[in-house]
Amino acid sequence: MLDEEQLLKEARNNPWFPELLKIAARRRPTFLGSLFDPQVEYLANDSVVIRMKITELLYNNLQIVHGGITATLADTAMGLAAYHASGRPSVTLSLTVNYLQPGLGKELVAKASVVHRGGRVITTRCDVFNDEGEIIIQATGTFYALKEGQITDGLSSTSGDATL
Amino acid sequence: MLDEEQLLKEARNNPWFPELLKIAARRRPTFLGSLFDPQVEYLANDSVVIRMKITELLYNNLQIVHGGITATLADTAMGLAAYHASGRPSVTLSLTVNYLQPGLGKELVAKASVVHRGGRVITTRCDVFNDEGEIIIQATGTFYALKEGQITDGLSSTSGDATL
Amino acid sequence: MLDEEQLLKEARNNPWFPELLKIAARRRPTFLGSLFDPQVEYLANDSVVIRMKITELLYNNLQIVHGGITATLADTAMGLAAYHASGRPSVTLSLTVNYLQPGLGKELVAKASVVHRGGRVITTRCDVFNDEGEIIIQATGTFYALKEGQITDGLSSTSGDATL
Amino acid sequence: MLDEEQLLKEARNNPWFPELLKIAARRRPTFLGSLFDPQVEYLANDSVVIRMKITELLYNNLQIVHGGITATLADTAMGLAAYHASGRPSVTLSLTVNYLQPGLGKELVAKASVVHRGGRVITTRCDVFNDEGEIIIQATGTFYALKEGQITDGLSSTSGDATL
Repeated sequence: MLDEEQLLKEARNNPWFPELLKIAARRRPTFLGSLFDPQVEYLANDSVVIRMKITELLYNNLQIVHGGITATLADTAMGLAAYHASGRPSVTLSLTVNYLQPGLGKELVAKASVVHRGGRVITTRCDVFNDEGEIIIQATGTFYALKEGQITDGLSSTSGDATL
Repeated sequence: MLDEEQLLKEARNNPWFPELLKIAARRRPTFLGSLFDPQVEYLANDSVVIRMKITELLYNNLQIVHGGITATLADTAMGLAAYHASGRPSVTLSLTVNYLQPGLGKELVAKASVVHRGGRVITTRCDVFNDEGEIIIQATGTFYALKEGQITDGLSSTSGDATL
Repeated sequence: MLDEEQLLKEARNNPWFPELLKIAARRRPTFLGSLFDPQVEYLANDSVVIRMKITELLYNNLQIVHGGITATLADTAMGLAAYHASGRPSVTLSLTVNYLQPGLGKELVAKASVVHRGGRVITTRCDVFNDEGEIIIQATGTFYALKEGQITDGLSSTSGDATL
Repeated sequence: MLDEEQLLKEARNNPWFPELLKIAARRRPTFLGSLFDPQVEYLANDSVVIRMKITELLYNNLQIVHGGITATLADTAMGLAAYHASGRPSVTLSLTVNYLQPGLGKELVAKASVVHRGGRVITTRCDVFNDEGEIIIQATGTFYALKEGQITDGLSSTSGDATL
């Protein structure tokens, strides 16, 4: 077992370590929140816009943003839209993503909105754009609004109020 | 702008920093590869099993694995299965995830397989289980096998040979 | 407005009219039930198998079964599996289909099963095979179990107990 | 084996037989085209609108339009949009539908558009509305443009130029 100083020495060998340090220095409650560092804007009509800077930490080994990261961004934006619409945390029931173009450039912009709210099931959509305004994924999602204090057993691991 | 020593001091305030240091000390070419640290096993019939330890860095603020992370794991496992079946890198065209139970416990186990290979389009499925063997998500995905040297413009950001 | 005898004369000009007459002569409560004429078998583990003969009435103009028909078959089989698991009618929340091969041959066989039941949300999967045992679509679906007497407002048009 | 006159006598017992006769009297090349009788309008930007009257033949046994029928309508509209965009027939690779409200009223209106065209893969979306302008499903789909004369083996059973 390496001690912390040895680990730090190893870690510094990675080209992405300085960026990782910046991320870790952020005051977000979760690591993923620090990694994504989403800038959230709520619009009218239960719409949400999230801007997120692209860093090399989000790359797959083709040096483009990993598709799972873009999916996570869309899930987060839709979960926030669902929360905004229902006033309650919700969990993802289903998520579908179509990949259109590689995630490249300076930032990603996710625009999510609520399509329908029927009882406890909230249906949403989200487009994610690159910094040239081109769509890179389209996503749809269904969410289930939790009752106060409801245990999430039997449901998704994503909460609408604080997915990151 | 903080210098590296100041950043390091800030970063150490995070409860998940020691774990982050362990991750960064790994010899994976990408940060996401180091974060997920997948243990990959190829089975017969173009099937792939990936085991991944759950750490607090993968949590959302409900202290369960973020649904986007589980989706990323499934996408990665299916991409590897597609690569194994076609012998070529491929990009994700579409991904659908159904969330069944929260991501909790010591590890996640993704089992992906190729359902059909038709020309350049490869269709896959993946179940992800918790360490008690319960299914927590089911996923399906379609992938597009790249020609040698093909630019990924117009397609997904996920490559089957090295998604992490 | 043509009277019934004139309509009948026109209708007889269609090559598929004799088959249509056979379908209409069936004692199914709905037209779609008569058209599909599904042979349903319930298996253990909340699984359902539906066999359906392929007729020219199910063709698109390429002379293969229309993809929407195959999707309807899968939705029906999954709805029945959900009903079998929950004992209550349910409505489809989301449906995803991956198309693998054209619908050709003498019959289609849909095999659906319940993957998870969490509260009122039931998650299912279904593979549809041709008469050579080759998979032609894979589908996944989520269903929402209705309370007794619940109005379906805000939900899907598909009922698990009697989708056809 | 019943002869045609006996079948006709049986068929007339069905409450939906007069409507079926009207459908069969239409001059559409396929039965499904006659059943749906879609009124297609091409808009700018590779968008397509299809209007379709609701008849009792499209009902499930809850007396609302079967969810598979609505999915078929959306698949057809997206296939036509893909055809319009690429100038070539295409087959459905994947289809996802979220069900929001039951299919009720006088007609359904599907509005489909092309989101992205990348090489031979065309990504689309479609909303279907009731006659009060309320959205009842949202759908997304990916299509694969065929080469001239390409056999559809290994692909879907849906063709973009003539799905009905």
